[in-house]
Order: sequence, then C-alpha cells, then structure tokens
Amino acid sequence: MSATQALQISQARPFIDHVKQHHPLVHCITNDVVQNFTANVLLAIGASPAMVIAKQEVASFVKIANSLLINVGTLDSNSAESMLLAAASAQKNHIPWVLDPVAVGPALAYRTEIVHQLIGFKPTVIRGNASEILALNGDNSSSKGPDGQDSTESALNAAKQLAQKHQTIVSITGDVDYITDGKQTYSITGGDIALTKITGTGCSLSAMVAAFIAGSTNTLLATASACFMMKKAGELGNKQQGLGTYAVSLIDQLSLFNPSQI
Amino acid sequence: MSATQALQISQARPFIDHVKQHHPLVHCITNDVVQNFTANVLLAIGASPAMVIAKQEVASFVKIANSLLINVGTLDSNSAESMLLAAASAQKNHIPWVLDPVAVGPALAYRTEIVHQLIGFKPTVIRGNASEILALNGDNSSSKGPDGQDSTESALNAAKQLAQKHQTIVSITGDVDYITDGKQTYSITGGDIALTKITGTGCSLSAMVAAFIAGSTNTLLATASACFMMKKAGELGNKQQGLGTYAVSLIDQLSLFNPSQI
Amino acid sequence: MSATQALQISQARPFIDHVKQHHPLVHCITNDVVQNFTANVLLAIGASPAMVIAKQEVASFVKIANSLLINVGTLDSNSAESMLLAAASAQKNHIPWVLDPVAVGPALAYRTEIVHQLIGFKPTVIRGNASEILALNGDNSSSKGPDGQDSTESALNAAKQLAQKHQTIVSITGDVDYITDGKQTYSITGGDIALTKITGTGCSLSAMVAAFIAGSTNTLLATASACFMMKKAGELGNKQQGLGTYAVSLIDQLSLFNPSQI
Repeated sequence: MSATQALQISQARPFIDHVKQHHPLVHCITNDVVQNFTANVLLAIGASPAMVIAKQEVASFVKIANSLLINVGTLDSNSAESMLLAAASAQKNHIPWVLDPVAVGPALAYRTEIVHQLIGFKPTVIRGNASEILALNGDNSSSKGPDGQDSTESALNAAKQLAQKHQTIVSITGDVDYITDGKQTYSITGGDIALTKITGTGCSLSAMVAAFIAGSTNTLLATASACFMMKKAGELGNKQQGLGTYAVSLIDQLSLFNPSQI
Repeated sequence: MSATQALQISQARPFIDHVKQHHPLVHCITNDVVQNFTANVLLAIGASPAMVIAKQEVASFVKIANSLLINVGTLDSNSAESMLLAAASAQKNHIPWVLDPVAVGPALAYRTEIVHQLIGFKPTVIRGNASEILALNGDNSSSKGPDGQDSTESALNAAKQLAQKHQTIVSITGDVDYITDGKQTYSITGGDIALTKITGTGCSLSAMVAAFIAGSTNTLLATASACFMMKKAGELGNKQQGLGTYAVSLIDQLSLFNPSQI
Repeated sequence: MSATQALQISQARPFIDHVKQHHPLVHCITNDVVQNFTANVLLAIGASPAMVIAKQEVASFVKIANSLLINVGTLDSNSAESMLLAAASAQKNHIPWVLDPVAVGPALAYRTEIVHQLIGFKPTVIRGNASEILALNGDNSSSKGPDGQDSTESALNAAKQLAQKHQTIVSITGDVDYITDGKQTYSITGGDIALTKITGTGCSLSAMVAAFIAGSTNTLLATASACFMMKKAGELGNKQQGLGTYAVSLIDQLSLFNPSQI
C-alpha cells in the first residue's frame, strides 16, 4: 500500500466551494441526540438538510436527495427498518451515501448486526472513530460506547482492509484523521481536543461528508475535504469561555469559513 | 377577496403581552430535529411547553393544555397515530390547534395523506412555507424537502382558497408573511434571510402561533402577531459572528422582546 | 426525622472532582427534547454520555455502564419497554441508577403506571420537582405538565416518606433543593429563576446525579453535590443577554466549574 499524503488546503477548497454553490439536499437518518446540531452544521456549510425517517417515505425520498447519511447512534427496530430501506434505495438509484457506525462492537451486538447488513448496500463512505473501524474489521478495540479510546493510527490498517474489502472509502477521525480507499490515503492533523468534549461533532462531520460527496467526481478527496473543514473550524472555535460557547462558535466558524484565510 | 393590510406593531402588542401574562400550556407533538429549540422558544416568549407523545396519553393531555401544535417533520407510523388521536381530541374539546405540514407534497405521499386526515379535524391554523401551502391546495410547487423554494406571494391565492375550504386560518411565511382567513389578509415584511439558515425557525414559529391563539378571541390577529414577533426578533438577532451565534441570539431577542422598542 | 442540614461547598468538592477524574460512562434513556443538552452537560462536567435505547441493546449495555439514567419525559410504548429492561438489568447487576419521573400525576396515567413499575426495580435516586414527588407519593399536586408549580418545601414530607418506603434517595429540586434518604436531609439554596426558563435543566441535573453516584460510596452526598453544582453554575450563568445566551453560558460554567472559586 502506498504512503500517506497530508491533505493540502488547496485540495480542499474546491469541494468546500462546491457545497456552498450547489446546496446539496442531504437526506439524514441520524440519531436523536444530534439531529438539531447536524441540521445546523449542514445549513452552516451551505447544504440543505432533510430528516425524513418513516419507512413509508425513505426509499422514495432518497431518490430526490443528492446524498444520504445513515447514523446508527440511537438505533431501534423501527429506525433500523427505515435505514435498511433507505440504503437499498441509495444503492439501487446510485445516490452516494455515508454510514456512521456509532458504537459498533461486541458490547452492542444488535447495531453491529444491522451495520453489517447496511454495509451490504455498499456505502460510498464509512466514517467512524478508531474503535469503531477496528470493531468493523473484526479487530480488538477498547471501545465501551460512542466515545472510542483507540488512536486513529492504530486503526489505519483496519481502515485500509475494510476499504478494499467493501470497495468503499473509510474515514477514521480523531487525533489525526485518515481517509483511505485502501490504496491512496490522506491524513489531516490539527483540530482541537475540545471537539471531543461537545456532542455531535463526529456525527455532524459524517453529515458534512454526505454533503461533500454529493455530485462529486472525486469521492476520496471530497471526504478528506469535509474532514479538513471540520478540523480547521475546530481550531478556530472560541475555547476561552467554556464548552457551551465552543459548540456555538464551531457553527459560527463553519458558516463563516473562508479557505483563503486558513 | 379584500385587499391585504400590513400588520401594525400596535396590533401585535396585546397578543405578545397576553402570552407573557398567561403562560399558556402548549402541547407539542413536533419533529425530533427541533424539539429542544421549540421548547426554548416557547419558554422565551413566556409560554409553557409540554412534549407529550404517547398514544396512551395525548388525547387526555390535550384536554388540559391551552393549545396544541402538530408538526409532521419526522412523522412515522407511531407518531402519526398519536397526532391523529391528539387532533381528534382537540376538535372534540374545543382546544385551538396548529398544523405545521412540513414538506408535504408529491415527493412524500405518506405524510401528505396523514396531513389530509389531520385537516379533517379542523386545525385552527395551518402554518407552512409557500411550497407546502401550494402542495396542500393541490397546486404545483417546486419543493423537494422541508425548505421550499416558492415565493409566498405565489402561494397567496392557494392560502385563501385553503382557508375558505377548511374554515381555518392559513399562514404562509417566508420573504413576506401572509396570514389569511380567506377574506381578511395581513402581511408582514422584514425579517432576515438568516432565519432560513438555522434549523427550526419555521417549526418554532408554529409553536409560537399555538401559544398566541390560546385563549384568544381573535385568532387571525393572534396568528399574525406571532409571525410579527418572530420576524422582528429575526431582525434584531446578532448576525455578525455567524449562524451559531445567530440561533442563540434569536432566543435572546425573543426573551427580551419589548414591543415598545420596535 | 432529623433536621435538615445545608450542604457545604467542602462536602460537594470531592464528588465534583471524582467525576472529572473518572469520566463515568452514563447510559441515558432520556426524552427527545433534552438529549443534546443532556449529552453536552455530561461532557461539560467530565462524564461520558451514551444514549443507547434499543430494547435489543439496553440490558447488556447497562452492564458496562457506570450508571444509568431513565427519564420518562417523552415516553411511548417502545421506550417504556426499553426502560423496564434497562432498570431490571441495573438492579440485577448492581449498577446505580436515577429515575426522573417527568410530569407523573393523575393527568398522565400511562407514564404514572410505568413509573411505578420502574420504581419496583429500586432506583438508587429519584429526582423530580415538587409536583412530581407529591404525585408519586399519592398526595395532591397542582401540576399540569413538566413544569410543576408546587414549592419544594411542600413536598419535603412526601420525599421523606417516598425515600423510606422504597429505600431510595429522593431529590426535590426547585426554589430550595432537598435531598433525603428519609432520615438525613440536605438542603441547597441559591440558583437562579432563569434555570426554569430554559428547557432541560432538571432533566440534565438528573443525568448529572447519575454521573455523581457512579462509583460513589456515599450516594446521598453525591446526589446533593450534583444539585449543588447545577445551582451554582446557574448563579454564575450570564443572564444579561437573554435566555439563549443563558443556556449556552450554563454549559460554559459547568465546564469551567472550579469549587475553589465559589
């Protein structure tokens, strides 16, 4: 496998601009903790979020969306059924889609089984933390919930294997982000530890990835560009006044984001 | 049909004060994206929100509420059942209620069917964007999700027809708000484009309308007054620091709202 | 029954530090209005929130969590089933757990029945407002929804009786907080009326209590310390700019909380 390249700002810029200009309609089936934050993050970057969840509606709505996000954070039997219908429709209709396998692993067998079924519908991108990617690849992980404790580097081989096995792109985010299709890999450093101390930054990054891959011809770079934008906005966020202000400031920074000033 | 009148601040003031003084209990069955924002908006204007959703509880809780909001944004089979029970109870017990028909239209047949059933229980007010009102009236719309693209003026005739047909009040909000009972129409200009770039402003306005019509003898003016308050708060919100701050500032402005200073 | 003692800051400090140092994993099954706020409050105090709700997952996830929160605010048939499974697992596996009986009372018979079933699984702590505690004890209350109108002092005897009957700790929060095991009682004054004008402060306090009792040998003091921290953060919050800013500032203050500076 080839070496890892650091993503350059000049590579991310066209993808950031593309979302701002095209306002992709992103169909989100995500968890109940982060729905509001996710919608505001998508609006801040210029995308148009739509949370449609009924099993009667998801398959047809996917067809008019520009991309789909499925996040299993607060999965239950009803939402699992909708997710499987939506993923099948995305595959059939060639709508790019992102899978966020929140907290998969041996401790949570039900979602792990559903996530493996979802992967059968060929997600365009899988984005998770190191613990989740290790678990998906069948490797050992120290995860005990949505906040994984493994380093992203420790999961890079698992990510590459997973990407090759399922012909998808895998993004592991954390201390250093890695985005790989199993052959080519981009890395992104920076960000801020505060991003892990407010809820929904990983989940809403997955939604950003869905916005970035909509209508894009280079899915690997589009995914990496979304990760880049979140890491840089996280650096720019106001950390002086506490975590409440930081969460607000993160959306501020995404909405004001200007690649020329990075 | 008569001419449209611009709503005056002096007309809105008594309704704004009425909510602050009487703290109406607003029973909300709304979508999962905006529940927190809606509750905070209602508290900010002086109302008392209560999100009660179980099919076992909604019909009896409607009876002790001062008004009801039904918003179909993240409708599924379970919530549809609760909505129909709540609407039936509201009609039977003469509790005023607001219907927010989020994203109705040909692309989403299931919710459109449920919304038509809900209209059978005679909502006091229907509040939507232009695309939703056009779709409800059977006219063509360009909508492809919750964020409609039609101008409110293009939907005014549809609103008047819908109001007369169902003996209800229809509020179309957007660039210019129109509030009509099919004969008399109020318009409200102003507001801010930023209101469309954060999630939940339309949905929480519907909740505000529910608070305003509780115990009111002039439902048309009460509805228009809620729309007025949201538009003015939207103008006063802090737009300089980005969209995260703007969302927070909107609730600030609603909580500090003083009609004497507009 | 013995006299009530005012909680001292020196008593609360070790419990506040314990959460910051041990990052307890708090399994939350809570209402849809406050999930995001609750997760951010838990992260702000140093805990690790996990919202796992599927009936297929809750019983096994409780076992790896350090504590459990069950809040019935937006209960429905599905979540009730998960709550009962989780509570049973908590009792069986000796995982401490908190019950927040939102809006129980004669107006809402379904949740009241479920809450009584949940109490059968011996919650470590029950936290509610005065109206809820009165209702749980079978006394009259003026409650008509989640925001009770009774004074906490009026519910103190009910709290003591409830605590003794179920061998649990009862925390009534409001103008003055009381935390009792039926014999010993702590009181906490202060706080700010603004805490009642934003949504989720009571619900997220219940989650804080769950974090504080995780791994603690003195559950009564741990519970009182969580209430103390919320009241003091509420006093420190910025009230000048309106209720939107206040909600953000409350999380800021929790994240920056330094008992040495109180």
